[in-house]
Amino acid sequence: MTMKLYCFGESGHSYKAALALELAGHDWQPVKVDFFNGETRSDPYRQDVNEMGECPVLEDGDIRLSQSGVIQQYLSETYGHYGGRSKEEERDVLRWILWDNHKLSSVAGMTRFLMNFLPREKQPAEVIGFLQGRLKSAYGILDAHLANRDWIVGDAPTNADLTCCGYLFYPEPFGFARSDWPAIDRWLANLEALPRWKSPYDLMPGSPADRT
Amino acid sequence: MTMKLYCFGESGHSYKAALALELAGHDWQPVKVDFFNGETRSDPYRQDVNEMGECPVLEDGDIRLSQSGVIQQYLSETYGHYGGRSKEEERDVLRWILWDNHKLSSVAGMTRFLMNFLPREKQPAEVIGFLQGRLKSAYGILDAHLANRDWIVGDAPTNADLTCCGYLFYPEPFGFARSDWPAIDRWLANLEALPRWKSPYDLMPGSPADRT
Repeated sequence: MTMKLYCFGESGHSYKAALALELAGHDWQPVKVDFFNGETRSDPYRQDVNEMGECPVLEDGDIRLSQSGVIQQYLSETYGHYGGRSKEEERDVLRWILWDNHKLSSVAGMTRFLMNFLPREKQPAEVIGFLQGRLKSAYGILDAHLANRDWIVGDAPTNADLTCCGYLFYPEPFGFARSDWPAIDRWLANLEALPRWKSPYDLMPGSPADRT
Repeated sequence: MTMKLYCFGESGHSYKAALALELAGHDWQPVKVDFFNGETRSDPYRQDVNEMGECPVLEDGDIRLSQSGVIQQYLSETYGHYGGRSKEEERDVLRWILWDNHKLSSVAGMTRFLMNFLPREKQPAEVIGFLQGRLKSAYGILDAHLANRDWIVGDAPTNADLTCCGYLFYPEPFGFARSDWPAIDRWLANLEALPRWKSPYDLMPGSPADRT
């Protein structure tokens, strides 16, 4: 049965789930959520789809799950792929998923939103500067970790990679330049080289150019 | 064998792990980390304790784990308690742990730091206002979820509760008032009523008054 992923192109958190589905070769289709017109904040969405008012949401038969990390773990447990090869690796994958939610993707997502999807006169310069400072520290930690590794956990791609890359392939500026972080750059190239890898706007509906 | 938790009193992320240890009646002791003098940012700490430069870190014999959500899940899997009573509850616990890392504790921790542990003249008003707006939205989601429930997942305390409360028992102001959120207030009282419950500064070393 075809799985459904509630998502939209600009959502790096959705991309983490979409990439896990696509790289594993699952049968899935996106359900576009109209974030920019307030769908995730609407009562029907909160009541019927996700009380947290977020994307992504995965439907697999009767099972409905939110939070990209839960979706990734569910896919690994149910269908294999990307969960890590031992209990120790599983815990390490979760460690990076949590770090990413706390320090990297959450902050990158906010910063990118403020810099690209708000009118210029509403962009809060002090907030953007603060968040970029936090991000720089996060890039440093990831780059140091990847200095002598091809993948974040073990010697193969896992959900740790598919999580931490969530916002790093987007074209919109938010203060991240691959050339500044050689180990991150090499690791992102490893991801791009995987069979079936696609960029966010090739994998999910709704590019910036589509919005009116 | 006595477990060790690298932590400090002001760290709500550490409190999540300390509370999980204490409520379950484990034999553990805190190892105080001198965050305010830069210990977590130091090379020895990053090399020997945690490359992510964070607290908490748990040592249980030869096992060393970081990220409060990983520590909580490890304790549940290894010793029982707070993990949820079914696979469905386990996933729901992880869903709230991820949401908390992304939307609640991470933002509350930053806001509290900026408002209480920086000199007044260095407190960035625009950033604090922005973060408090994000927090208000998070409190609303948690309060709505708890409106007709005693606990976040199922009908007993789980790591979901022990995570989301991470910063909500601290005395320092960061824009959270229990009286504004009746369901959260009731739920926090449920936690306070648990045998062995302790407030952060009673559970971990280093109160604001100790700092010089």
